[in-house]
Amino acid sequence: MTAAKPVSIRHLATAQPDFEAAFQQVLHWSAETDSAIEQRVADILADVRTRGDAAVLDYTGRFDHVQAASMAELELTQAELKAAFDSLPALQREALESAAQRVRAYHERQKEACGLSWQYRDEDGTLLGQKVTPLDRVGIYVPGGKAAYPSSVLMNAIPAHVAGVAEIIMVVPTPKGEKNPLVLAAAHVAGVTRAFTIGGAQAVAALAYGTATVPKVDKITGPGNAYVASAKKHVFGTVGIDMIAGPSEILVLADGSTPADWVAMDLFSQAEHDELAQSILLCPDAAYIAKVQAEIDRLLPTMPRADIIRASLEGRGALILTRSMEEACDISNRIAPEHLEVSSNEPHRWEPLLKHAGAIFLGAYTSESLGDYCAGPNHVLPTSGTARFSSPLGVYDFQKRSSLIEVSEAGAQVLGKTAAVLAYGEGLQAHAQAAEFRLKRG
Amino acid sequence: MTAAKPVSIRHLATAQPDFEAAFQQVLHWSAETDSAIEQRVADILADVRTRGDAAVLDYTGRFDHVQAASMAELELTQAELKAAFDSLPALQREALESAAQRVRAYHERQKEACGLSWQYRDEDGTLLGQKVTPLDRVGIYVPGGKAAYPSSVLMNAIPAHVAGVAEIIMVVPTPKGEKNPLVLAAAHVAGVTRAFTIGGAQAVAALAYGTATVPKVDKITGPGNAYVASAKKHVFGTVGIDMIAGPSEILVLADGSTPADWVAMDLFSQAEHDELAQSILLCPDAAYIAKVQAEIDRLLPTMPRADIIRASLEGRGALILTRSMEEACDISNRIAPEHLEVSSNEPHRWEPLLKHAGAIFLGAYTSESLGDYCAGPNHVLPTSGTARFSSPLGVYDFQKRSSLIEVSEAGAQVLGKTAAVLAYGEGLQAHAQAAEFRLKRG
Repeated sequence: MTAAKPVSIRHLATAQPDFEAAFQQVLHWSAETDSAIEQRVADILADVRTRGDAAVLDYTGRFDHVQAASMAELELTQAELKAAFDSLPALQREALESAAQRVRAYHERQKEACGLSWQYRDEDGTLLGQKVTPLDRVGIYVPGGKAAYPSSVLMNAIPAHVAGVAEIIMVVPTPKGEKNPLVLAAAHVAGVTRAFTIGGAQAVAALAYGTATVPKVDKITGPGNAYVASAKKHVFGTVGIDMIAGPSEILVLADGSTPADWVAMDLFSQAEHDELAQSILLCPDAAYIAKVQAEIDRLLPTMPRADIIRASLEGRGALILTRSMEEACDISNRIAPEHLEVSSNEPHRWEPLLKHAGAIFLGAYTSESLGDYCAGPNHVLPTSGTARFSSPLGVYDFQKRSSLIEVSEAGAQVLGKTAAVLAYGEGLQAHAQAAEFRLKRG
Repeated sequence: MTAAKPVSIRHLATAQPDFEAAFQQVLHWSAETDSAIEQRVADILADVRTRGDAAVLDYTGRFDHVQAASMAELELTQAELKAAFDSLPALQREALESAAQRVRAYHERQKEACGLSWQYRDEDGTLLGQKVTPLDRVGIYVPGGKAAYPSSVLMNAIPAHVAGVAEIIMVVPTPKGEKNPLVLAAAHVAGVTRAFTIGGAQAVAALAYGTATVPKVDKITGPGNAYVASAKKHVFGTVGIDMIAGPSEILVLADGSTPADWVAMDLFSQAEHDELAQSILLCPDAAYIAKVQAEIDRLLPTMPRADIIRASLEGRGALILTRSMEEACDISNRIAPEHLEVSSNEPHRWEPLLKHAGAIFLGAYTSESLGDYCAGPNHVLPTSGTARFSSPLGVYDFQKRSSLIEVSEAGAQVLGKTAAVLAYGEGLQAHAQAAEFRLKRG
C-alpha cells in the first residue's frame, strides 16, 4: 500500500534565498482552456441552438450513455424528487434539512444586509435610488458521476430561492442512467422547480438558448468539468454566469495552537477532492510544521481516498515556514485563497489583516468542512486567486438592480444646465437639447 | 439635405396580426463576435503577454499612429491631468465638478445601502457574516477618438474611488496623438491614480497581465469597440470585467402627457450615439404617436448629427402602439432596456410593473440625458436585454465579499454531526473526519 511511505509534500521557508521562485511554482495554475475543447464545445452549442431537443438527446446518448426517445424521459418529476428524499435514511434526511435550514437562514440575513431596494430625495426633491429585483429564471448545473454533491444543490438553489427567483431549473447528468438519490433529495429540499438529467456543454446550451422542452434561463450557476466551464464562458453575455471554477484550495494559517491532527485532516479534506486541489499551510513555528507532517504521515493510511490525497499534497501542496504570523497574512493575501482557515487562538487579531479570500474560517473549531455543508455561508467560492475580485455565490447573484431617477421640475433647472454643458463638450447636441427642453423658457 | 424628408421609422401596433414577428425583427441583435476579430485579439493578447511594453508600443504605433520610444512617453502625469482641467473654460470646469460631486454623493449612498460588512451570532455563539473589502487595483478603459466621453471617466472612476480602491489605472487611446482635454480633466476630477494613452486589445492585455510599466489590475471596466469587448471577454477569469456592452438603447413608455418634442428629442439623444443605437416608443395613444413622428420630422433637420440619428431611427427604431399602458409595461419587460423613460404624469403607478431595466427615468422632467451626466446614478448600464440578469456599474463592482465563520465549541458539536453525515454521503471521508475531530470525545 503506497500510503505507508511518508508524504513528500513540499517544505518551504520564507527565509530561504530562492523562496520567491519556489513560491511561484506553488502558485502556478493556468486557467487557460484547451483550444480543442473550446472548438468541440462551440460545435455542441451551435448544434443545440439549431436542433434543440434532438441535439440534446443525441449528446446525452453519446456522452452519458442514456438513450431516451424524448426529452420528457429526461425530466425528473417533483414526485421523483420527493420519493428520493422519503427513501433516505432518517439521519440523512435530518442532516439535509438541518443544513438547508441553516443555509437558508444565513442567506436571508444576507438579503436583508445587502439585497433590498433603497431610495432618497435630494434637496430639490429629486428621487434617487435603486430597485432590487430577482431574476425570473435561473439554471443550476450540478455535476454528476464521481463528483455528485447534494450540498452543491443546496448551495446553488437556496440563495436563488431566497432571492425570490420564480423558476429554478436544475440539470444533472446521470452517466449510464445512475441517479444519485441524495442529489434528487437535495433538489426536493432546496425548492428546485424543474430538473433534467442532462449535463455537459449540451445542458449549458439548452439552458442558455432554450429548447422546446428546456426553458431558456437568465443565468447559469454551478460548477462543472472543463467542457461545462468552457460552455459557460461561451454563453456569457447571452445569459449571466457565476465565476468559472478552477480546482479547490485551502490555506491554513496556523499559530500552532490547534491540535496538529485537526490541521492535517483539514488539509486532507481539500486534497481528497482531486489531484489538482491545493492544500497549503503557513505557520511561523517549525516544530508545529513537523508535527503536522507527522500527523499527515500517520493519518494518510487510514483514509479511503489516500491515493488522491497523496497525489494532491505531493503535486500541489506546501508547508511554508514564515517569519511571523504577519508575514503569513501577507502571503495569504498574495494567494487570495478560496478557503482560508485562521487556526489560531486569537483569530480576531489576524482577521483584519486578511484582505482576499473566498471564506475565512476563524479559530480551531471552524473546520472548512463545517462551512462546506452546514454552517450557513455558501460553499461556492472564488478559486485560483479570483477572490482578489470576486465573491462567494450569494443572494446578490440572483438579483439585479435598476437605478431609479425622478428629477423634480426644480431639479431639472439645475441639472439641465450642467448636463447641457457636458453634452455639448462631448458633441452630443440631442443630449444637450433634451436637457434644455426641460428648462423653463424665458 | 437628406434630413428634410420624413423619417421612416417603423410603426407597429400590438393589435396587428403579425406583431410578434415584426417585434422579433426589432429586437434582433446578435452579441456574437466575429471570429476574425477574436483571432486577431487572441494574437495581440498573447504578444503583449510575452513581450510586454515592447508589444504595446508596436501596436500603439500601428493602430493609433503614435510613435513612442518608451512607455514612459505614453503615461500622462498628474500635472498634465490637472493642467487640462485648469485650461478648461470655467463653465466646463464647474459642470465637471458639479457632476462629479453628485455622482460621488449617489455612490456613497449606494455603499451605505449595500456595501458594508455585516455579521451576527447564532444561539450557539457561532459568528456568521461577510466582510466587504475594496479591490486593490482596477483598470478603466476609456474610448478615444470619435466617442471620447469625459462623463464615462467619472462614471467608472468615481464608484471605484468610493469603494476604496487604492489604485485606479486609466487607459485611453489618443489616435494620431490627439488628447481630449475634457477626458484628461475628468481623470483629474475623478481621482485617477495613473493614466496611459494606450487603447484597443493591447491596453486590455497590458492591464490584465501587467507589463514592466503598466501594473496588473484585478478588474477592468469601461466600454470599447469590438476589439476591446473581445479582449475583455478573453481575459475574464484572469481579471474581473464588467458586462460586455452592446449598442445603447432607450425605451420611452409614454401615456401622452409629456410634450411630444421632449420625447422626440429623448429618442434622438439615444439615436445620435451611433447607427446601431436603438430608440423605441411604446404608447397606447395613436394620436400622440403621430405627434411624436411630426416632432421627429420637424426637429431632425436642426440636429448636427442628423444623418446618424436618421440611420439609427430608420434601421433600429420603432414607434409601437399598445392596447394599454399595462401592455406597454409587459413589452418593456420583454425588451429589458438599458434606459427606460416612464414619460407619464403618474410614473409611480407604472414603476412597480417594470421588472427589467438598467435605469428607470420617472416622469417628464427626467430626461435620460440628465441621468447620463449628472443626476448621480451610473450611466454604465446593462445593454441588449442583459438587464434581465445584470445591474448598473456600481460601488459593488469594485468591492468583493469574504464569508466569515467562527464556529463556537458548542456549535461544532451540532454542526459536526450534520456535516459528517452529509460528507460520508458524498464519499468525502476527510471532510467527515475533520468535523468529527472537533466533537468532544467520549
